[in-house]
Amino acid sequence: MKSLKLGLTGPKIQQPVPLITLTTDFGTDGIFVGCMKGVIYGINPKVNIVDITHSIASYDRVEAAFLVKSFSGDFPSSSIHIVVVDPGVGSARKPLLIQTVHGLYLGPDNGVFTPILMEGKPRVREITQKRYFRPAIGATFHGRDLFAPVAAWLSKGVPPQQMGPIYPNPMTISIPKPERIRSNRIKGIVMYIDHFGNLITNITWKNLEQLVGSNVFEKIHVKLSGRDYGVLKKNYSETPEGKVGALMNSFGELEVFCYKGNAQKRLRLKKGSSVEVFRV
Amino acid sequence: MKSLKLGLTGPKIQQPVPLITLTTDFGTDGIFVGCMKGVIYGINPKVNIVDITHSIASYDRVEAAFLVKSFSGDFPSSSIHIVVVDPGVGSARKPLLIQTVHGLYLGPDNGVFTPILMEGKPRVREITQKRYFRPAIGATFHGRDLFAPVAAWLSKGVPPQQMGPIYPNPMTISIPKPERIRSNRIKGIVMYIDHFGNLITNITWKNLEQLVGSNVFEKIHVKLSGRDYGVLKKNYSETPEGKVGALMNSFGELEVFCYKGNAQKRLRLKKGSSVEVFRV
Amino acid sequence: MKSLKLGLTGPKIQQPVPLITLTTDFGTDGIFVGCMKGVIYGINPKVNIVDITHSIASYDRVEAAFLVKSFSGDFPSSSIHIVVVDPGVGSARKPLLIQTVHGLYLGPDNGVFTPILMEGKPRVREITQKRYFRPAIGATFHGRDLFAPVAAWLSKGVPPQQMGPIYPNPMTISIPKPERIRSNRIKGIVMYIDHFGNLITNITWKNLEQLVGSNVFEKIHVKLSGRDYGVLKKNYSETPEGKVGALMNSFGELEVFCYKGNAQKRLRLKKGSSVEVFRV
Repeated sequence: MKSLKLGLTGPKIQQPVPLITLTTDFGTDGIFVGCMKGVIYGINPKVNIVDITHSIASYDRVEAAFLVKSFSGDFPSSSIHIVVVDPGVGSARKPLLIQTVHGLYLGPDNGVFTPILMEGKPRVREITQKRYFRPAIGATFHGRDLFAPVAAWLSKGVPPQQMGPIYPNPMTISIPKPERIRSNRIKGIVMYIDHFGNLITNITWKNLEQLVGSNVFEKIHVKLSGRDYGVLKKNYSETPEGKVGALMNSFGELEVFCYKGNAQKRLRLKKGSSVEVFRV
Repeated sequence: MKSLKLGLTGPKIQQPVPLITLTTDFGTDGIFVGCMKGVIYGINPKVNIVDITHSIASYDRVEAAFLVKSFSGDFPSSSIHIVVVDPGVGSARKPLLIQTVHGLYLGPDNGVFTPILMEGKPRVREITQKRYFRPAIGATFHGRDLFAPVAAWLSKGVPPQQMGPIYPNPMTISIPKPERIRSNRIKGIVMYIDHFGNLITNITWKNLEQLVGSNVFEKIHVKLSGRDYGVLKKNYSETPEGKVGALMNSFGELEVFCYKGNAQKRLRLKKGSSVEVFRV
Repeated sequence: MKSLKLGLTGPKIQQPVPLITLTTDFGTDGIFVGCMKGVIYGINPKVNIVDITHSIASYDRVEAAFLVKSFSGDFPSSSIHIVVVDPGVGSARKPLLIQTVHGLYLGPDNGVFTPILMEGKPRVREITQKRYFRPAIGATFHGRDLFAPVAAWLSKGVPPQQMGPIYPNPMTISIPKPERIRSNRIKGIVMYIDHFGNLITNITWKNLEQLVGSNVFEKIHVKLSGRDYGVLKKNYSETPEGKVGALMNSFGELEVFCYKGNAQKRLRLKKGSSVEVFRV
């Protein structure tokens, strides 16, 4: 939990206070997000609520899973993260509560929590205790009727074990991993394209270190569509304006960028496109 | 007021604290919404502010009226709802304060509160007391200069009657209602299209019950562009992927959807398109 | 500081409480903004955070500078404004803290604060004290790693002088000013186009008063693409529906509008287009 580490180097941090984050595919053009907040504040007016994003592509559990893994490290470990990308709402899929050292996660059992479930051994519960739900619970908006009120009660100190029993086999989805395609070469893919058109890949520091040991910045080159883009940069401005480069971004992922431009438009790559790194 | 009912079935709810919601056509690409919040927090830093949406179609009072009716049930009855869709800002149209059992509403006298005015007998006031306005009030941004500061003072406990006199004849606009076109058939229209492309109609539970008495789920079929889409579903996943169905949504409205797809794109319907339900 | 003036005419205002605003080109489709808030709340859970906008055009420092000047007057003077439009992040450009009578400003030394630096004599500091940074600071996301935590510590009462030394020569960028092109005529340009398609120019009250002295509303006409659009209006509805007019908006800027329409689409003007006013 990165922000608490600040306590070690900086001034004293005060007691954690409850914080609920929201990550959905609901958009902000309608009333869905507002209704969730109305329910939360109706139960706990003292909680802080942070919108992560409501622009997950509709029903895209892989995108949700990719983003959830990235943002939660920046929040206090007392945080409660609601993630609702849930095409199967109201069907047999179960609502989950996942307890980790980084915080609590609430959302449907459909794979959106795959990276959270892979890391450490989180305790997973099925949320069954209707007394913490919105009284008139419908079948199409569990974000408002179930996850929002349960999160609000958790933020007021109701312990997780009161929400339901241990759930032994939560669903995971296949998330693409980089492959070692030769002794000196790793092939990854573009997992996500950010607001600036930067191409975020599934290649991490660990992958690069496995390939070259140390001195990553001297020994690694990046290749896209067969073209060598040279060594990793340390920041965007090391590349001339309008030119493409790659760096390790602030979430520890290899990212392809175009300085003061848009790498996606420039390279015409998309989610799923290949990115290679090789040892020189 | 739905969320307070929770007090009856769930644990004890604490005292309501002030909450202001914002619904506008201002967008979030500019500074308008931020300025309103600056003014509110300048007066009452302890209030909670919830954005409902700022994506109402520009000047679209019917859309605003439709959404306002839907979201306010999810908020504590102590809430203050600001609704600013106000092409006539600065003209002779009056600024209103409406007192209902569900909360307070602030906005222009141009019809955006039609459903609120139709329900029960709300007390309506014209806001006239300039001492609660922003000192330098202009003619083009009453959201910031009038509604925001008045809401902030109300949230601090200034009673509504201090804001101005009773206003006897607030404006209402015509909002389409479903019609009984045969003894066994109701024709409604699409009122709103949500972020997922779901088509939200003006047909409610009450309309269906009037048509068939009980057993709505067995006796009602839905027809679009002359095609029978069968019985009402209970959740999205009862329909095969990519197929169209209809259900009663979490706001009590008949909604046409496409499971894991986009009903608007698939059916090429739009706001105002007809939707029929009939008794089989 | 406009909102505190309210204290003079209206009821008593309570003590200012900390408030941090965010203005970026990060978009809300990703996790950047959420991560900044996680870091801020991790340090100071009691602060209020207001999003101004995250839709600044990517890397557009002129747009950021234009908006910053407009919104900060609506916030308490105890506010802390973070502005991150920062293509050079991680390079040699310095992170700044600017102390003004209207509040504190944090952001890169790249010109985004030009209007703030021009007004009065603000004290400018380079932010150097790493103990207030996120411990694992990267080179690509100073919004999260530097500006967010420094703002959070400032909001908890750490004095500005602890953040770093005086910085003597902050960068400014050229911001177009209106020109007097004849004795009776001023030429300005469109600086910004708002959500409604209104064209916001760089012509202010002061410019008009310099041209005509008093009676601005009688003596000034507005000309666009060679066509005279008549006198300044006082509000939008003084112009017939669908017709173009101009007024002085709620930020003191000359604004061209189309009543219940979209002036940008109607006139096919854009940022940088000329707007003339002349004395009749």
